Amino acid sequence: MTIYLDNAATSHPKPPKVYETLASCLQVAGANPGRAGHKMARLAQQIIENTRFKLTKLISASSLEQIIFTFNATDALNMAIKGILEPGDHVITSYLEHNSVLRPLQNLAQKQITLTLIKPSAEGLISPKDIEKAIRPETKLIAITGASNVLGTLQPIEEIGDIAHQNNKLFLVDASQVLGVIPIDVEQMHIDLLAGSGHKALMGPPGTGFLYTSLKNPIKNWREGGTGGDSLSPLQPTNLPHQLEAGTHNFLGIAGLETALDFIEEKTIKKIKEQELFLLENLIAKLKEIPEVTLYGTFDLTKRVGVQSLSLKGYSSDEVATILDEHFDIAVRGGLHCAPLLHQALGTVPNGLVRVSLGAFNTLEDIEAFIFAIKEIIS
Amino acid sequence: MTIYLDNAATSHPKPPKVYETLASCLQVAGANPGRAGHKMARLAQQIIENTRFKLTKLISASSLEQIIFTFNATDALNMAIKGILEPGDHVITSYLEHNSVLRPLQNLAQKQITLTLIKPSAEGLISPKDIEKAIRPETKLIAITGASNVLGTLQPIEEIGDIAHQNNKLFLVDASQVLGVIPIDVEQMHIDLLAGSGHKALMGPPGTGFLYTSLKNPIKNWREGGTGGDSLSPLQPTNLPHQLEAGTHNFLGIAGLETALDFIEEKTIKKIKEQELFLLENLIAKLKEIPEVTLYGTFDLTKRVGVQSLSLKGYSSDEVATILDEHFDIAVRGGLHCAPLLHQALGTVPNGLVRVSLGAFNTLEDIEAFIFAIKEIIS
Repeated sequence: MTIYLDNAATSHPKPPKVYETLASCLQVAGANPGRAGHKMARLAQQIIENTRFKLTKLISASSLEQIIFTFNATDALNMAIKGILEPGDHVITSYLEHNSVLRPLQNLAQKQITLTLIKPSAEGLISPKDIEKAIRPETKLIAITGASNVLGTLQPIEEIGDIAHQNNKLFLVDASQVLGVIPIDVEQMHIDLLAGSGHKALMGPPGTGFLYTSLKNPIKNWREGGTGGDSLSPLQPTNLPHQLEAGTHNFLGIAGLETALDFIEEKTIKKIKEQELFLLENLIAKLKEIPEVTLYGTFDLTKRVGVQSLSLKGYSSDEVATILDEHFDIAVRGGLHCAPLLHQALGTVPNGLVRVSLGAFNTLEDIEAFIFAIKEIIS
Repeated sequence: MTIYLDNAATSHPKPPKVYETLASCLQVAGANPGRAGHKMARLAQQIIENTRFKLTKLISASSLEQIIFTFNATDALNMAIKGILEPGDHVITSYLEHNSVLRPLQNLAQKQITLTLIKPSAEGLISPKDIEKAIRPETKLIAITGASNVLGTLQPIEEIGDIAHQNNKLFLVDASQVLGVIPIDVEQMHIDLLAGSGHKALMGPPGTGFLYTSLKNPIKNWREGGTGGDSLSPLQPTNLPHQLEAGTHNFLGIAGLETALDFIEEKTIKKIKEQELFLLENLIAKLKEIPEVTLYGTFDLTKRVGVQSLSLKGYSSDEVATILDEHFDIAVRGGLHCAPLLHQALGTVPNGLVRVSLGAFNTLEDIEAFIFAIKEIIS
């Protein structure tokens, strides 16, 4: 069986009950959710609203209308960025960001907005002071990832949130790499917009994601169409979440996500995090003993999630990933991980890095198999 | 077991093998598809590309890059409409359209574009001549549904396509109600843009849809972000389908759709259509015998798909739908079906209509149970 160490791309395996949901849900609740419909449609709608409620609990949001279901985190980020910014706005973001943040912003920066990119420290951490210094009167948005998808470095979200709040700026967090492993409290952290992926550490199926909004700033319409109610209005309804939720939901995916959220609640984020950091510590310790390996990111585990990138002397990252796949049945990801600016800052273009990303189902044996394989490649 | 007559909202049940795919796919190919990845990621990517190929075959498209996977048909329609139109453009559309076409257009019409809305005949058919008469020099797009989601009336797509082609205008078809039951040939029908739903008569899971483009006109970026390749480019890559496919695909949904497309190919669209029209003919004949029932739409079955709307004297559509649900376990949909202009033209606002929509798994027994229930309600 494949040793799967690519959980930052999508988690695998999912909790066993998620597969059960995917096998059965569409047979019992396979109708199109919509208000005032028949039993099957109401059941499907109930699944969606239960999941919405569980997401509000996960991030300590205060109301259901603050959670908008999306296609994926990229969809949520585009909806937020394009729905908030106006010509003349200034945005602060970082070299750590994924292309799902960088590309919408860099496209807008060609004509409408100005953009300041904050560089991380050598260890991969953004300094809140650098953010503060970059704020201008016309700054509308501060957009920072919760954790780097390459370095696994946890960013000082609460401190940046404080700065955003004090300066009356909107704060957007790409939470794709932290939800499910790091406790998030959107109010305490002063987060105004948060994009989440359903299929990474939240362990739901692909085709799921969501946007949280503090409701501080209206978001322009994105996908316009049917919402199951309010059919007569010639324009998209203005009440959330309907304003931003046109079209048929991926209700099978949302059902799987609900099951995954139950699993996380039962196991607790605290324990999932402890286990991942235990494995990460073990991985780092063993990799440090191999002179041909260069490790990236901070070794301070209080500032980490379970992602470790490395290079191997004499090999490109894709070569290592291919050998691991073909000869050892180990799944990791080489290349640039859709984070080009960070790789440029690290000097790892074009070779990229080998990214090992842990999930809730990895074991010490997986780490040992990976270390064994790396040593075999060297010798 | 519920007698399900709401297939125009989403088909139910799905072919048995679709459930098998949903139960197993994520366990064997549960990685994030991306080029140059490990075995599991390549397997997931292969499923996506196989499905893309099967969709090109379904609509006789000429190349793979013409098929863009989307969240749902609404997503595809927004991508197309907002990605094509420029300030000053004129658009021709119809009273038959769903809110997923009307709302984006009516929003744009508030500031940027002008809009002509064509009324259907009393039987629910758009006249190609009316379209032709509405064409102006600044007309950029003609957007017409393949079949009304309320009346089931099949529109003269090929004739309208000819007119669009002769006048060098772009032709967009909302194919949500025809794909899987009506043969579509985008080249022969001169279709430039076609939005498809994966979970209606194509019988795949929710969270799936696609946009076909003839490539005649570039579509502006929509969701920008990671595409699995080309990580270094600061902007979205310009090559299709990647330009329009940022973020993680719903590859589980796409896998289910592939299985459903195999089922359709094996059963053949011809047979599926014949069976639906046989049931529709039976339904119409029996409903005609009930004086309290008013039927809507043409009785010419060559111009129909398996959708029939009706009203029952003395009852609102929602009342009928609720009684059918609660007392007879029959699932139909009342209300306005996200098609407000058509209901206004029919004079069926606010009571709406009871919509019966057939699928590939309905039987004569389902029709008989529905007729029995309607007669019981009357008496």
